[in-house]
Amino acid sequence: MSKRSKQTPVPFPPPRVSVARSAGYTPGEQPRQGEKIIKLNTNENPYPPSPHVAEAIQSFDFASLRRYPSPMADEFREAAAQLYGISPAQVLAGNGSDDILNIVLRAYLDAGDVLAYPTPSYSLYSVLAGIHGARVLPVPWGPGWSLPAEQLATTGARVVFITNPNAPSGTVVPTETLRKFAHSFGGLILIDEAYVEFADENGLSLLADCPNVLLCRTLSKSYSLAGLRFGYVLGAAQVIDELAKVKDSYNCDALAITAATAALKDQPYARSTWARVKTERARMVAELTGRGFDVIPSQTNFLFVRPPKADGGSLYAHLKQKGILVRHFDKPGLSDRIRISIGTHEENTDLLAALPG
Amino acid sequence: MSKRSKQTPVPFPPPRVSVARSAGYTPGEQPRQGEKIIKLNTNENPYPPSPHVAEAIQSFDFASLRRYPSPMADEFREAAAQLYGISPAQVLAGNGSDDILNIVLRAYLDAGDVLAYPTPSYSLYSVLAGIHGARVLPVPWGPGWSLPAEQLATTGARVVFITNPNAPSGTVVPTETLRKFAHSFGGLILIDEAYVEFADENGLSLLADCPNVLLCRTLSKSYSLAGLRFGYVLGAAQVIDELAKVKDSYNCDALAITAATAALKDQPYARSTWARVKTERARMVAELTGRGFDVIPSQTNFLFVRPPKADGGSLYAHLKQKGILVRHFDKPGLSDRIRISIGTHEENTDLLAALPG
Repeated sequence: MSKRSKQTPVPFPPPRVSVARSAGYTPGEQPRQGEKIIKLNTNENPYPPSPHVAEAIQSFDFASLRRYPSPMADEFREAAAQLYGISPAQVLAGNGSDDILNIVLRAYLDAGDVLAYPTPSYSLYSVLAGIHGARVLPVPWGPGWSLPAEQLATTGARVVFITNPNAPSGTVVPTETLRKFAHSFGGLILIDEAYVEFADENGLSLLADCPNVLLCRTLSKSYSLAGLRFGYVLGAAQVIDELAKVKDSYNCDALAITAATAALKDQPYARSTWARVKTERARMVAELTGRGFDVIPSQTNFLFVRPPKADGGSLYAHLKQKGILVRHFDKPGLSDRIRISIGTHEENTDLLAALPG
Repeated sequence: MSKRSKQTPVPFPPPRVSVARSAGYTPGEQPRQGEKIIKLNTNENPYPPSPHVAEAIQSFDFASLRRYPSPMADEFREAAAQLYGISPAQVLAGNGSDDILNIVLRAYLDAGDVLAYPTPSYSLYSVLAGIHGARVLPVPWGPGWSLPAEQLATTGARVVFITNPNAPSGTVVPTETLRKFAHSFGGLILIDEAYVEFADENGLSLLADCPNVLLCRTLSKSYSLAGLRFGYVLGAAQVIDELAKVKDSYNCDALAITAATAALKDQPYARSTWARVKTERARMVAELTGRGFDVIPSQTNFLFVRPPKADGGSLYAHLKQKGILVRHFDKPGLSDRIRISIGTHEENTDLLAALPG
């Protein structure tokens, strides 16, 4: 001990300047367990996951956890391939779609390369790119949330991310527009389909003729498994092979693989939750429009709405005080609105009742 | 369709040159489920995880999976803090220790910065650093696997990784040697303690006076949970805060957090498996030494041994043919040996019986 006290104090080693300056990504507010709140701020599915998930986990062989899991999540890969009519080699699973986004950046962007994306969109993109050392070029959406294809193509981007349907707008770029863009653009296009199961169309057909297109999906919303952290990406086998090289060796755990596979295979259950969400969405569009809100047509499980007084921030605060959490983005062009996740029938009714008269 | 066929074919977008050239990390061979093999090649614990793991998962509220998990794995964080007598703010959980290693690189290394580590060690370090864009400077271990402290300090490294106990040697650098190094070195030192529970000492006391030291741990080996992907890092709260900024927002899933917490809390069970492994290790050291093997004294759950004929490669092939998988590193300085994970008493006996006469 005396020896130690003679030493000069050891300093804290400084992190990267970009990290020291960064505040990190701020996830949506999460109430503590047990807190009574109606939570319509992070687009979770209001219904529980398929009962097959609990069944699969309850019959899991826990002794097998001492072994490493399948590096490529084979069981899930095969289930996804069968569901989508593609080859297992076209599927890569990840620890949430955040893991997938990181893997794509790692595989396709050198330091200083450009990642472009229409904006406003998922605010995590710029955070991840910043950490990775890539440059970001956000391109404003065209009129009516249309794809700014020419502007994206002239950014010199090596990779383009397109959230489709988009968040927080809830809007959709038609598949044929995306196809045209993919045929004209030489880089990699990741279509982030986190909400696609609530939409009228999806990008699956692009896989046939656009080897530069990846579809990134997640079980968080559409399969009610935000707590499980399970995402996947579909694409050309040749691209998937490159992604596999830079993922963590065992990026998905054995319990998550089992649960995700059970959920994906139970299509009738998942589809029933999507149908219920869409029914409630239609009701909320009508109700809010009737109350003077401007509601952007949404193909997701949330609505991005401007209240009659265009006071997004104060409506957020008003609802929070009444025990209802919604999302407010305090940013230019977004701050007059709030984003409301579609809840259960009861939750939505409570929200309507809590609106200022 | 006619429109599409007029297009020139869309090319595959090229990944980063470094990725295209890379073969990725090669994890140890994994037999297919059901394959009858004695698996002593990837240092998994031969005993199943604590029964508390299955109990915790079986009473898990599966409906809650629709919600995002705790971003900082609070439940685990608090259990680890209590176990080690530190603050929860000194603990960060990850999706396996691979996730932790990536987080540390992301937070502390800019492109071109140097990561140094004694070599031979865990071969993943150079793969991760390469993906991250950092330079690696491996420094050969000193005589008798001693820490090459001066050489490490003069590399100009911003971060040093030290596997302790080391793999594949199984050897240990004494805590006081590490303390001296930490007091003399201005950069960040990550001590990868993946095997530390099988050793006589660990680095916990360094946290008191070395804010530049991180201890990286995993539940894969010592808690028989390789399939769960759960690691964690202990360090100064100020450093942990920087790491938290660059981790994925929800890097651990709710099931894994529950299972990991249950396992960590059941210390009596975990300690019983460590004791059994150490007893078997002593037996194997004696048996193999008696058969003319050179056995490096090990404080891990594996032995790195040179057979009498120094023919690591052919012994590996011989054992594989007999249904026993061990690890052979076909690299200069390592290829004369094999690495044998400590199995159950029966597995170890079978291995001894399978050795060439």
